[in-house]
Amino acid sequence: MSEQIDLAAYLFTRLRQLGVESIHGVPGDYNLQALDYIEPAGINWIGNANELNAGYAADGYGRIKGISALITAFGVGELSAINAIGGAYAEMSPVVHIVGAPPLPAQNARACLHHSLGDGNFRIFAEMYAKLTVAQANLTDTATAPSMIDNTLRQCVLQSRPVYIELPTNMVSQKVSTRSLKFPIDLTIPHNDEGFEDAEVELILARIYASKQPFIIVDGFTAALGITAEADELVRVTGFPTSTTSFGKGIVNETYPNFHGIYAGEAGKQVYRPWAESCDLILRIGPLSSKGGKGGFTTIPNPKYTIDFHRNSVEIGGTNSFTNVHVKPLLRKILNRIDKSKLPRYDPYPDLGNPRQQLEALAPAQSDSAIDQETFWQRISTCFREGDIILTETGTPSIGGRDFVLPPQTTLINSGIWLSIGYMLGASQGAACAQRDIIHSLNPTNPPSLSNPLTTPTPPSPRSSQRTFSGRTILFIGDGSLQMTAQSLSDTIRNKLPLTIFLINNDGYTIERFIHGMRAPYNDIQPWNYLLAPQYFGADLESVEYPVVTRCAKNWGELFEVVEQKEVRESKGLTIVEVRMGREDAPDALVKLVAGAARRNSGATGPAGSEEKAIKAAG
Amino acid sequence: MSEQIDLAAYLFTRLRQLGVESIHGVPGDYNLQALDYIEPAGINWIGNANELNAGYAADGYGRIKGISALITAFGVGELSAINAIGGAYAEMSPVVHIVGAPPLPAQNARACLHHSLGDGNFRIFAEMYAKLTVAQANLTDTATAPSMIDNTLRQCVLQSRPVYIELPTNMVSQKVSTRSLKFPIDLTIPHNDEGFEDAEVELILARIYASKQPFIIVDGFTAALGITAEADELVRVTGFPTSTTSFGKGIVNETYPNFHGIYAGEAGKQVYRPWAESCDLILRIGPLSSKGGKGGFTTIPNPKYTIDFHRNSVEIGGTNSFTNVHVKPLLRKILNRIDKSKLPRYDPYPDLGNPRQQLEALAPAQSDSAIDQETFWQRISTCFREGDIILTETGTPSIGGRDFVLPPQTTLINSGIWLSIGYMLGASQGAACAQRDIIHSLNPTNPPSLSNPLTTPTPPSPRSSQRTFSGRTILFIGDGSLQMTAQSLSDTIRNKLPLTIFLINNDGYTIERFIHGMRAPYNDIQPWNYLLAPQYFGADLESVEYPVVTRCAKNWGELFEVVEQKEVRESKGLTIVEVRMGREDAPDALVKLVAGAARRNSGATGPAGSEEKAIKAAG
Repeated sequence: MSEQIDLAAYLFTRLRQLGVESIHGVPGDYNLQALDYIEPAGINWIGNANELNAGYAADGYGRIKGISALITAFGVGELSAINAIGGAYAEMSPVVHIVGAPPLPAQNARACLHHSLGDGNFRIFAEMYAKLTVAQANLTDTATAPSMIDNTLRQCVLQSRPVYIELPTNMVSQKVSTRSLKFPIDLTIPHNDEGFEDAEVELILARIYASKQPFIIVDGFTAALGITAEADELVRVTGFPTSTTSFGKGIVNETYPNFHGIYAGEAGKQVYRPWAESCDLILRIGPLSSKGGKGGFTTIPNPKYTIDFHRNSVEIGGTNSFTNVHVKPLLRKILNRIDKSKLPRYDPYPDLGNPRQQLEALAPAQSDSAIDQETFWQRISTCFREGDIILTETGTPSIGGRDFVLPPQTTLINSGIWLSIGYMLGASQGAACAQRDIIHSLNPTNPPSLSNPLTTPTPPSPRSSQRTFSGRTILFIGDGSLQMTAQSLSDTIRNKLPLTIFLINNDGYTIERFIHGMRAPYNDIQPWNYLLAPQYFGADLESVEYPVVTRCAKNWGELFEVVEQKEVRESKGLTIVEVRMGREDAPDALVKLVAGAARRNSGATGPAGSEEKAIKAAG
Repeated sequence: MSEQIDLAAYLFTRLRQLGVESIHGVPGDYNLQALDYIEPAGINWIGNANELNAGYAADGYGRIKGISALITAFGVGELSAINAIGGAYAEMSPVVHIVGAPPLPAQNARACLHHSLGDGNFRIFAEMYAKLTVAQANLTDTATAPSMIDNTLRQCVLQSRPVYIELPTNMVSQKVSTRSLKFPIDLTIPHNDEGFEDAEVELILARIYASKQPFIIVDGFTAALGITAEADELVRVTGFPTSTTSFGKGIVNETYPNFHGIYAGEAGKQVYRPWAESCDLILRIGPLSSKGGKGGFTTIPNPKYTIDFHRNSVEIGGTNSFTNVHVKPLLRKILNRIDKSKLPRYDPYPDLGNPRQQLEALAPAQSDSAIDQETFWQRISTCFREGDIILTETGTPSIGGRDFVLPPQTTLINSGIWLSIGYMLGASQGAACAQRDIIHSLNPTNPPSLSNPLTTPTPPSPRSSQRTFSGRTILFIGDGSLQMTAQSLSDTIRNKLPLTIFLINNDGYTIERFIHGMRAPYNDIQPWNYLLAPQYFGADLESVEYPVVTRCAKNWGELFEVVEQKEVRESKGLTIVEVRMGREDAPDALVKLVAGAARRNSGATGPAGSEEKAIKAAG
């Protein structure tokens, strides 16, 4: 084996080792040379119609696979994608953003290059990205490039956040040593100090054993922390009443009898807030906000009784904070040591509602009645199957989706704080791609897609290894959101990715109507003929391999008929179901949430953070 | 009249005074309250499908009107638009970017708000924008807000570059004094020091009188400097051989006998490089690059003999640099003092080619022959009329468009350095909107759109006042570019903006094929059915008021027939002409340019900047 390899080959080999089987991006000057190295590294190229959509797709891919990569050109390309990287940073999605940069001689000469500002400053965009990424590497030196790449990728996976790599065109084919490639990048979490960890575990167990009214809230960073299995086990073993936030929904097996849906404080639908507020122990797993800050969140019943499990710290009672403790081994030790006989038992078990029973108790919908936001999200849940990836876009879907009743092993992607509309269509393309890659690699009859002899088998990321992804990718998205990133449909078609879309057509930005300007023209949008998308974007309407199915449902009867159709259930290709709903119809939780937002926007200084957190939880 | 006014009303009144008659943007939480103030200020709201397209549209509007405004939400919205602002900065387009920011009490509490990173830092995006804008204002205090607004808008217009204004939701309806509104914002250019200016003028005139082989090159910043009329007059009065860069094309009346098309050094089609290199005086007006830097550009024949006219400086002979001299009064004084009898005269006048004669000398195209890049751009020029705004997207259109033969008073928008594909579709929507606003305001039978009694008549911006815009808006764009920002077609339709699009369908990123990877799959794109756009985006296909016309031309005969059709010539609504061209066909200049780019990308250290500048000039 040669001891030397082209720098770009080194980079893509490393990515392939870590589990990147498809790379998203847009070709452009300064990155074309690098693109030549993708397929030889055993990676698929997913060309996107624009960079923002590529970034969103990479984010979605990363949330499923535990790592993803995005390639753009310098300047124009990277700035078009920066909002996606901001979202990946805020919500902990592991994206490696590779920027094809101008050749170093031209950079050093401060030349007036295209895609730059013309002022000879080639650092300006990297400086912006430093604010939104946890590690950066500028590959200007073959001697240091391999270790810089390794360190950067390590941070991406371990912190589950985006990183930034600049690859100048003239460096692409420079030779670097293959030596380190023989060893996988070290992704082990450092051991906790044994004595410290033991003390910590005993303290937490003592709090658990001593509690009379314990409660578990699973938040959305749980998946990014790689502790989905531990969180699920904690819920199962303790039997404590459990909720998730809407950001964390889908992480816990919702068939457990002690699962009670979403807890969202004052905006919650299930009215168990009084009960929650009298709890004497709340275990929050992977919470989005690191500190309560000034004032409390209504989604945290009482910070005094709360134990927050973060990646590298545990906060107890809003006062004690143990840092430099890694949550995964800590939780594992708690689970290993837990003495079930010492756990508090509810007698009687409180009546906190059971989403599954609530769904079954729903009165049948009238066939010719309009489809309403109040029950749509529950009723549609009967279509879900194990292994499905479900995405709910910010707006009525993200809030309505709280009411989903999910089978085990379904994954929900829902924005927790960034709430950038348009994101979810791109993310669904990326998630569908990740799902295809996983299914492909699991099938033993498929030859390995890997032709690169340097690539060693990868230990799967903790993020993806704790879940099965054998089902479908299903997106719920509003019309205003879809318009933002509609080209992602083209990307989906081009790459023949199976995707089912429920397009909630309610004629404009309904969530914003409720925040401000219910009938203001600025909340209107251009009414598209959404079901023409496959034709416009050039899908082969006769394809058997990748069938295109479009349907429209204007009432319950039509909707039930559509979702029962074999081609819709199978969802082998692109399926778009347009669901018409009223423009001033919204889930009850949304109405409550936005009342808080309106108060806040006017500058009300009530309990700071309460509405903010509520809106956040609504994402 | 009340002495107090809501802060948002103050802001929009100022914008209206400066000539902003339409504002682009996307509604979102944190900006909805402000949107209520737009129509009462006599301004149209142009809701865009996404923020990048809104930013591009604002840039296009600004290049025509001399000022424009864009509104986005904090975080997600502003980051989606930042690439557009980067382009506006690099190419000097005056865009006021208004960001609807979270309420101050929540910011001060460092609350975990949606659209933020969740870390309580609300300055991070403003810090990014500080790198791409020439002035910023964070409106946190009613006492200072009016003067901050005035100062920021002044810098936007005077520097013709983007500025950034943050408007927290709780500040929108806070009261501020109306006092300063009675006086328009002072946009006068400070007088030059008389003695200094006189010396400067005499020096330049002496150089002109002493020259034997003078040459004028008009570059693209001429429009942004507000000296379009002066540049044109200099060309007409001196009779010196004149070229423009492709960025500067359209600024000079191309019917002058001393106009000789584009000068682009080694990449130039008109082979007068030897002549240009022997010139002993080159007057460069509004050059894009401020300094020659290391090594020469092949587009500047000899820096030693060059006089560069920048906004606030004149560089003479690559060595002397006079700063703090304002170019507009300086040029005006030169024109006032010029003694035509002392001007050098060419005898015989050199044979530098005449684009108009070259067009007339073209052999007729064969009806059934494929439409070729080599002659398309010349032949299509016969369709142009005075007052047209023509836009050429980066790619084959920007390079092909060098060969346009333009009537007087046509405006060409062509990217000079940023070269962000997708830009031009958004920009064409904005340019069409600006053109409509100008035509509307010029028509005395139209009532003033202005209902705000505080708004005083505005002196038109120097940028827009030197041009008539009575014609059509015509865009030339490739298929790969159109896919980037296709939603702009929806924005165009929604706002009933007249726009003619020649879509060059050559099946992929042809310019990139020539740079690297002629047949690489990454340079392919999904083949859309482009002419379905009006149906997909919901145009009324039966409308008489806003007719939609779609045509496809696969050979010369079909093209000539289409452009002769009455509905295409009139172009009252949306007209899309799909022009099929070969995927490996490109203008000769492009082939030459990309050879240089390929050399540079490999790290060749030849004359630094030569290819860069060439690519730049090709924009």
